[in-house]
Amino acid sequence: MRLTTLRTAAGTRAARIDGDTAVEIGAPDLGALLADPMWEARAASADGPRHDLAGADLAPAVPHPGKIFCVGLNYRSHILEMGRELPEYPTLFAKFPEALIGPDDVIELDAASSAVDWEAELAVVVGRRVRRASEAEAASAVAGFAVLNDVTMRDWQYRSVQWLQGKTFEATTPLGPQLVTPDELPGGVRPALDLSCTVDGETVQRADTSDLVFDPVALISYISSIVTLNPGDVIATGTPGGVGHAREPRRYLTDGAVLGTAIRGLGAQRNAVAAAAPVPA
Amino acid sequence: MRLTTLRTAAGTRAARIDGDTAVEIGAPDLGALLADPMWEARAASADGPRHDLAGADLAPAVPHPGKIFCVGLNYRSHILEMGRELPEYPTLFAKFPEALIGPDDVIELDAASSAVDWEAELAVVVGRRVRRASEAEAASAVAGFAVLNDVTMRDWQYRSVQWLQGKTFEATTPLGPQLVTPDELPGGVRPALDLSCTVDGETVQRADTSDLVFDPVALISYISSIVTLNPGDVIATGTPGGVGHAREPRRYLTDGAVLGTAIRGLGAQRNAVAAAAPVPA
Repeated sequence: MRLTTLRTAAGTRAARIDGDTAVEIGAPDLGALLADPMWEARAASADGPRHDLAGADLAPAVPHPGKIFCVGLNYRSHILEMGRELPEYPTLFAKFPEALIGPDDVIELDAASSAVDWEAELAVVVGRRVRRASEAEAASAVAGFAVLNDVTMRDWQYRSVQWLQGKTFEATTPLGPQLVTPDELPGGVRPALDLSCTVDGETVQRADTSDLVFDPVALISYISSIVTLNPGDVIATGTPGGVGHAREPRRYLTDGAVLGTAIRGLGAQRNAVAAAAPVPA
Repeated sequence: MRLTTLRTAAGTRAARIDGDTAVEIGAPDLGALLADPMWEARAASADGPRHDLAGADLAPAVPHPGKIFCVGLNYRSHILEMGRELPEYPTLFAKFPEALIGPDDVIELDAASSAVDWEAELAVVVGRRVRRASEAEAASAVAGFAVLNDVTMRDWQYRSVQWLQGKTFEATTPLGPQLVTPDELPGGVRPALDLSCTVDGETVQRADTSDLVFDPVALISYISSIVTLNPGDVIATGTPGGVGHAREPRRYLTDGAVLGTAIRGLGAQRNAVAAAAPVPA
C-alpha cells in the first residue's frame, strides 16, 4: 500500500494512492492514521474523496512525528572506503518536527548559514508502539518507508560537538512523497532500493539501501531498548558518501539550486532552493 | 505565581499553588495551559477544585513538551576551573518527552546501564511562541522556571560521539515540582538561585544559577534563530561540576539511593532509585 498526506483547502488529509489518484482515508494526516491500531485495514478499505495526484500539494508524509531519530554514518561501503571500522553501536541524534517540509516544498536558505548541505536518506516510519522490541516485534512495528533529505547547516552542526543545531533548522527537511508499506518493496522490512541525490540534475549521492550497517529492524529494536517508539515516530537511517561538505572544493546549496532526492519504489522529491526574503528593516 | 501539574484519579490537572493548597485551573496540564495566550490571567483567576499539596501526586510539571533542548557545559566557574575557555556558542542536544517523570517518582534503573549519573539543572519553560526573538522578545517568552535533573546513562552517552542515546532513557528525568514565574524570583528572567544536588543526603553539586554562560534569555533568543519555540517547550540550561562520572573513583546511582535536586525558590525533588524488576523469563 502507498499512502500520503495531502494539503487541501480544508487542511491536511491522509490518503491512499491508487495509481494516479489519492483517496482520502478520513484522518487528518498519516500520523493520526497510524495512531489507530487498525490503520492498515482502515487505509485499505477507505473510499473517501478522490484527488488527481498530478499537481496535488503534498505535506510531509508524517507532518508531526512525536520523535525523529537520525542515524550517523551507516552505509557500510562508505565507512570502509574511508578506512574506518564498522561501528559497534549506531550514532543517534535528533531532529524536531518543525524541521519537516513537503517533498516539493521550497527550501528557503537562512541568511545565518552559508553551508547548507544535502543528505539523502531512507526514513522508516513506526506503525506500532514498541518497547524493548525483539527482532520479530521490531519487524512488525515497521509501518513503511519514505524518502527524507536530512538537509544540514554544516557551519551550525560544527559550532559545538553536538550536531543538533545544524540538523533541526526550521522547514528544511523534506519527507515524502509516499509512505510505502514493506510488502510493496524488494527486501520488505529491510528494503534493497536504489537511493540517489541530485543537485541541478547532477548525481551527487548514490547507494543501495541494503548497504546499511544497522538496518531498519535493528534500529527499531535498538532504539526501543532506550525509549518507547510510538506510531508515527520517524527514524532517518543515515546517508551514504557524496555530501557537499566532504567534496574538494566543498559544495553547498545556493539560491536557485534544485535538490532532487529519490529512492526507487518510494518516489522522488524535488525541492527548489531559494534565498530567504530580506528581513524588513 | 507558582504552578504545578497534579495527578488525580481522573487524569492530570494543571493547578495554581496557593500556600499549602493546589487550585485546579481547568486545563489537563501546564503544557495545555501555556498553549492558551491568556494563560497567565486564566491561572491567576482560577478557582477550581482544591487539593492539599502535602501528599499530592505530582506529574512532570510539563508532561509532554513539544521540544526539550538541553545545554552542555554552561557554568562559567566550572568551565574556568577545568582550564577551558568559555564557549562562543552553546552546546545543544535533545531529550524526548518520554524521558520525563514527576519530581517524586522512582527512577527505575535499566539493567542495560551500569553508569547512571546525576545532572542538576535549571529548566526554562517557554510561555509564548517565538521565532528569531530579540532579547526583549526572548525575555517575554519565559513562562517560568523549574527544577530538572538530566539523569544520564554515561555508558550509553559515550557509545557514539552524539550524546542523545544516554540522555533520553525512558522515565528517568524528573521535572518539577513547580513552574515559578520570573516575578517571584531574584534576578527575574535571569534568576540567581542556589542550586544543589544530593545523593543519600550528601551534597554532590552546588552552584548559583546566575553563573550560566548562556542565560535563559540568551538561550531562547539563540534557539529561536534555529527553530520556532512554542509554549511548553523546555530548555534544560546545563549542570555545574560535581557529577559522578568526573569523580575519582567514579560514582553512579545504584539500587536504594535517594537523589535530591533542589533550587531555592523553585522547590525540591526527591527520587528514590530502584533496580528494575527482573524481566519475566
